[in-house]
Amino acid sequence: MTIATREWQLVRRPHGEPVDADFALVSLDRPEPQPGEVVVRTIAMSVDPYMRGRMNATRSYAPSWELGETMQGGAIGQVVTSRSDDVPEGALVLHGAGWRDLAVLPAAHVQVVEPLPGLPLSLHLGVLGMPGLTAWAGLFRLAAFQPGDAVFVSGAAGAVGSLVGQFARLRGASRVVGSAGTPEKVAWLGSLGFDAAFDYHDGAITDLLAAAALDGIDVFFDNVGGEHLEAAITAFRTFGRAALCGSISNYNAVSAPPGPRNLSLAVGKQLSLRGFIVSSHADLRPEFVAAVSGWLREGSVVARETVVEGLDSAVDAFRALLSGGNTGKMVVRLAPDPD
Amino acid sequence: MTIATREWQLVRRPHGEPVDADFALVSLDRPEPQPGEVVVRTIAMSVDPYMRGRMNATRSYAPSWELGETMQGGAIGQVVTSRSDDVPEGALVLHGAGWRDLAVLPAAHVQVVEPLPGLPLSLHLGVLGMPGLTAWAGLFRLAAFQPGDAVFVSGAAGAVGSLVGQFARLRGASRVVGSAGTPEKVAWLGSLGFDAAFDYHDGAITDLLAAAALDGIDVFFDNVGGEHLEAAITAFRTFGRAALCGSISNYNAVSAPPGPRNLSLAVGKQLSLRGFIVSSHADLRPEFVAAVSGWLREGSVVARETVVEGLDSAVDAFRALLSGGNTGKMVVRLAPDPD
Repeated sequence: MTIATREWQLVRRPHGEPVDADFALVSLDRPEPQPGEVVVRTIAMSVDPYMRGRMNATRSYAPSWELGETMQGGAIGQVVTSRSDDVPEGALVLHGAGWRDLAVLPAAHVQVVEPLPGLPLSLHLGVLGMPGLTAWAGLFRLAAFQPGDAVFVSGAAGAVGSLVGQFARLRGASRVVGSAGTPEKVAWLGSLGFDAAFDYHDGAITDLLAAAALDGIDVFFDNVGGEHLEAAITAFRTFGRAALCGSISNYNAVSAPPGPRNLSLAVGKQLSLRGFIVSSHADLRPEFVAAVSGWLREGSVVARETVVEGLDSAVDAFRALLSGGNTGKMVVRLAPDPD
Repeated sequence: MTIATREWQLVRRPHGEPVDADFALVSLDRPEPQPGEVVVRTIAMSVDPYMRGRMNATRSYAPSWELGETMQGGAIGQVVTSRSDDVPEGALVLHGAGWRDLAVLPAAHVQVVEPLPGLPLSLHLGVLGMPGLTAWAGLFRLAAFQPGDAVFVSGAAGAVGSLVGQFARLRGASRVVGSAGTPEKVAWLGSLGFDAAFDYHDGAITDLLAAAALDGIDVFFDNVGGEHLEAAITAFRTFGRAALCGSISNYNAVSAPPGPRNLSLAVGKQLSLRGFIVSSHADLRPEFVAAVSGWLREGSVVARETVVEGLDSAVDAFRALLSGGNTGKMVVRLAPDPD
């Protein structure tokens, strides 16, 4: 007996923007689970900007994906077969082997989760998962946010950025400013409680930020890179702090983008610029889960998703993510949540 | 009665490289000291790279100097007249009103110093003064140096850089690499105990650093800016830390230099880049003075000076400093140390 699966594989390394021919959706017969293993049927899987780096041959912070192997990523599903005493059939679990309809995994590689009443399971891929912890670690540890700080978030309508702005507001920011790529996203940021937001297509970002931030910023959370960082350096007050989380504007670039021409201001302004990846900050998870679960229960955090239906659409969802096609967390849903 | 002084004034703001016509050496009659004031005869005065910023109309981290007023800076001298019970005549004092042969100051604005036996007083302008504390704060606080770190210092033959490398070596660096601008300076770095050094004119700095640093760096102390920072970002290992102290390569620039094109590597490498100015770290002075005085007494730190004689030569000394004419601390000596 084998298990028939459908899985997305990387078959060619993208040059610049990924195209359909870089990927293949294949049907495989996987071996039955061994003792200690479980079979998980995917309910929802994550597509995230960092995956673009894994498609390159050069190692980014995560190892490169191999050609002809199934891609990986965050997913949530239900255990349909268990050969482990630790994880019963029917359990809802998170795991890191996304991009497939069925995953055969060691039970030790899955994490049982409890659904939050009235909220979709996929929140464990977003606000309660890696993007949420990324926002938390970047804002509170890397950028050392303090109540009263003025905060600027680039890519503020994305999975991480929309949480950074809300976390900052809930913890007493004096002002929260965000940038996004469409008028609709800008309007949505207003509904989230951002004090100001702008569409970065509307002019020079330095000018747009200066108008939005009034008397400067203390914290910058960067998801976009490039011109946004230069604008933030100009807007920073003394002792400004940047958490450098990503540079989605460069992920499809085929040549190195220019760096911020004003970086020498970092000396006199005594700025701190700190890059990070979330896996180095897993120790923050308990305080993060406690705080954000509470905010979700009381309705003070909005966790919006852009949901794409079906495994067949996963590559389309990923490509749309890189060009800003999402508001909030981009999720690929394969099946409805169990009752 | 008045006091006849000779003082250097800024009479025009330099455009690019300072020229003689930007400065004037004037003879003034200063009022006699009031109660609580002292008159200090200058023994030696400091010229430092940060002074170039004070010559511009735009505020850098220190306020702009006013046109037609006497410039300021670190100086050491002897009290020749005192109207204060706190500071006796004959005392040796540090103060911040350099660029003149005689300074009339409130006694509260001078700091009495004890000479170190056998060492010139001017060390209080260098290894025991602002440049020394800059090296200390940048290396140990901003870059969070730990024993075993591999360290790269740009402008390593300067007043600050030469101390950074020596401090790192004395505290257990696994490797200390420096860049400098002449073969003589490079050779001198070897005599200081640097494990490797290169002349940054000898090729692309990224290549020169890669060859000198072997398997990468953990700490970068930047005095130069520009291409040096880009090279360091490439050479950084995970969790690399940069202390951004200055960017002397840009001080005379009339347009913004390009930023590091590889700054997006800061995310995956989880780098920390921190700008600083020494005045924010005065709390480190006691530990700094204790450690460095000990090293000087035992001869384990070399505090080289480039000495220019006479107040008339002060502007020449400053201009030479900006073009790399110094090895170690650039000092203008007006009078010999008292016996």
